[in-house]
Amino acid sequence: MKLPASTEWVLHCATTLAQLEPGTTASAAQLAQYFDLPQAYLAKQLQPPVRAGILTATTGPRGGYRLARPAADITLLDIVEAVDGTTSPYTCNEIRQQGHGALPPEDCRHTCVIAQKMDDAHRAWRRSLADVTLAGILATLPPHAPDRTRRLLAETR
Amino acid sequence: MKLPASTEWVLHCATTLAQLEPGTTASAAQLAQYFDLPQAYLAKQLQPPVRAGILTATTGPRGGYRLARPAADITLLDIVEAVDGTTSPYTCNEIRQQGHGALPPEDCRHTCVIAQKMDDAHRAWRRSLADVTLAGILATLPPHAPDRTRRLLAETR
Repeated sequence: MKLPASTEWVLHCATTLAQLEPGTTASAAQLAQYFDLPQAYLAKQLQPPVRAGILTATTGPRGGYRLARPAADITLLDIVEAVDGTTSPYTCNEIRQQGHGALPPEDCRHTCVIAQKMDDAHRAWRRSLADVTLAGILATLPPHAPDRTRRLLAETR
Repeated sequence: MKLPASTEWVLHCATTLAQLEPGTTASAAQLAQYFDLPQAYLAKQLQPPVRAGILTATTGPRGGYRLARPAADITLLDIVEAVDGTTSPYTCNEIRQQGHGALPPEDCRHTCVIAQKMDDAHRAWRRSLADVTLAGILATLPPHAPDRTRRLLAETR
């Protein structure tokens, strides 16, 4: 059960973009240099969060990425699910209904109790991530962090 | 983020073994026929829970698998982690410490706040699964279920 490595990239890029001055953007080239990541591959990984309405991508000489909505309205769950999808890690293939021990259909009107408990755990995981916003993450950073982030980003291109 | 398909197999086999009379076992052949699963591959998937002390495998003509401890002392977390390991799905590669924006080591004495929040979510998932025992699962089954399970298992070999 693994999230893709790009989960860390997108979480950190979104946290970085949350520190920009309003109305400004950072390009894939800048973010790639900021974190020493491969630019083309990073740009590809930033597409799903754009499609999910978390980031906005603008084109042109001053174009780049910015948050599509306030940092208080973007949760870690939004970002992680934009990267990896919303599916539960547990797949129920209904083996209770196959083989010599197969349960009859009338005993299978409700979700299998094992699948229910696995879904409960997935819900607990989702709830935990839904409780954390980018604004909440920013609030834990040292007071000088956004200035430093903007300064170092400005030095990249 | 996917658990292997064998997670369902092992969870259902353990639930089945929890319904046996004390002192009896079920073989891989019986369990495979009960759920219509490939026997050799199922036997292989039952090894990690044996190594983890969840199941006991006995050899000989009346040999097979049984629970290694009471159903009240085996949680879904025990089983799922025997199958898939205990690692968090999120990997922190410390990208905060690389590239033009690299944080100095003195700012990285504590775990990255994003990794902390991802770990919190993993802990919530683990806690949810640790709260459910095989005895708890059995308590949700209809009263006739264990008799039926034993009868159908006895018809397989």
